[in-house]
Amino acid sequence: MLIVGEKINSSRKNIKNMVEGKNKEFIQELAQKQVEGGAQMLDLNIGTIRNSESEDMKWLVKTVQAAVDVPLCIDSPNHEVIKAGLEVYDWNKGKALINSVTGEKEKLELILPLVKKCKCSVVALTMDERGIPQNSKERFTIADGLIRKLTNEGIPTEDIYIDPLTLPVSANIQNSNTVLETLKRIKDSYPEVKTIIGLSNISYGLPERRLINQNFVILAMACGLDAVILDSTDQKIMALIKATNLLLGKDEFCGQYLKAFREGKL
Amino acid sequence: MLIVGEKINSSRKNIKNMVEGKNKEFIQELAQKQVEGGAQMLDLNIGTIRNSESEDMKWLVKTVQAAVDVPLCIDSPNHEVIKAGLEVYDWNKGKALINSVTGEKEKLELILPLVKKCKCSVVALTMDERGIPQNSKERFTIADGLIRKLTNEGIPTEDIYIDPLTLPVSANIQNSNTVLETLKRIKDSYPEVKTIIGLSNISYGLPERRLINQNFVILAMACGLDAVILDSTDQKIMALIKATNLLLGKDEFCGQYLKAFREGKL
Repeated sequence: MLIVGEKINSSRKNIKNMVEGKNKEFIQELAQKQVEGGAQMLDLNIGTIRNSESEDMKWLVKTVQAAVDVPLCIDSPNHEVIKAGLEVYDWNKGKALINSVTGEKEKLELILPLVKKCKCSVVALTMDERGIPQNSKERFTIADGLIRKLTNEGIPTEDIYIDPLTLPVSANIQNSNTVLETLKRIKDSYPEVKTIIGLSNISYGLPERRLINQNFVILAMACGLDAVILDSTDQKIMALIKATNLLLGKDEFCGQYLKAFREGKL
Repeated sequence: MLIVGEKINSSRKNIKNMVEGKNKEFIQELAQKQVEGGAQMLDLNIGTIRNSESEDMKWLVKTVQAAVDVPLCIDSPNHEVIKAGLEVYDWNKGKALINSVTGEKEKLELILPLVKKCKCSVVALTMDERGIPQNSKERFTIADGLIRKLTNEGIPTEDIYIDPLTLPVSANIQNSNTVLETLKRIKDSYPEVKTIIGLSNISYGLPERRLINQNFVILAMACGLDAVILDSTDQKIMALIKATNLLLGKDEFCGQYLKAFREGKL
């Protein structure tokens, strides 16, 4: 399981202020805390800062990479911002993950050259010009089309991360099942293609959100999840992921689990 | 999800003492607590009391049924004890569940007449004369044989509960996966047949057992689990099960989840 730290996201008001104010120390400390908590990659998302997004992303990539040694997920709906981030990216820190392309043709044509040029990984969302399909069959159809297009362009399957798009279960009780079924369909058809979800959306509008988020990541892991964007400073959820890895047979001799126990992290 | 309360089990020393001492008040209070916690059925297991097992089971069935209105799971490797329990069972409290038959021919021939006579449900374990198979394929083969035999004898599919037998993950890192895969195979082939597991074995020999037990029930539910034998007085695990029901699309309008929240049970 690739753990991607979610916290440097300008939809959180204090992050927006800290990025706009160029508060290097705050951002670097937040990056370090996430890595210490177990993040193996950090997501950078400043989608809510409109005027200086590209310059801010450049500053953010440089600031974070000066503090931690993990690769970054450059997360923006704007290809110019992604391009700006990649321009200053330090490739010695590992392969960047571009977040994201969709089934929208225009978007794909703008992002694809960046992925090919930088040989980075890419998140592909199961939506297209018509929006996000309600059911897993149609989401899989979009994923299937994207995987074919990307591999035809020479992107290795293991560099493709499909995000089946998590919508709140409070809006439609089937929203969780739709994601779980899409994950299963993808892994059944393309075992080497990676899957990724963001965790916080699922519980929007409900009480005790952490409880729901915790459960959702476990269920998703049972359905073949490879990567998750979450709060890696939340020790409880990190402990649950370790226990789940154990129960899915991915922790030989229970080594990681027992190590976490000895370190007081369970 | 059928929740079966596990606590009246003589492998716990105090239960053994209380049954031997015929402590009615203690047993009835324990039964009530489990039902208040959310148990919809109670397991009665006095397998470790050797001399007076049949008489003790009769006393236990009468004592528990005088206190609570849920059906019981009569749990014994000895068909005489099961028979004794059924003799005094109050059928107005709902259908009894016999625990268990296995692929062992002799055992099946002793238990089957009881199941047919009482029209009760039955737990079938995926083991036979050769023991418990290591892999899910062979466990499924045993389950498949048992389902055919039981339905040929007129037992309705919905009265059959397959238990894929949970062994500690500390002994073999694949023990959890084997159960999860067996559950999937059974539900894929026989959607109407029920599945059941006991929860506590999985974590034997490891620290922070509750964490592992919690995760295991969630993973099992993702693989089609219908019933679980657990400690229903553990509010944390009951909350996790409610959240999982929600995420599996089984809680229309999030009603049960929101009710539990309002009652302070999450």
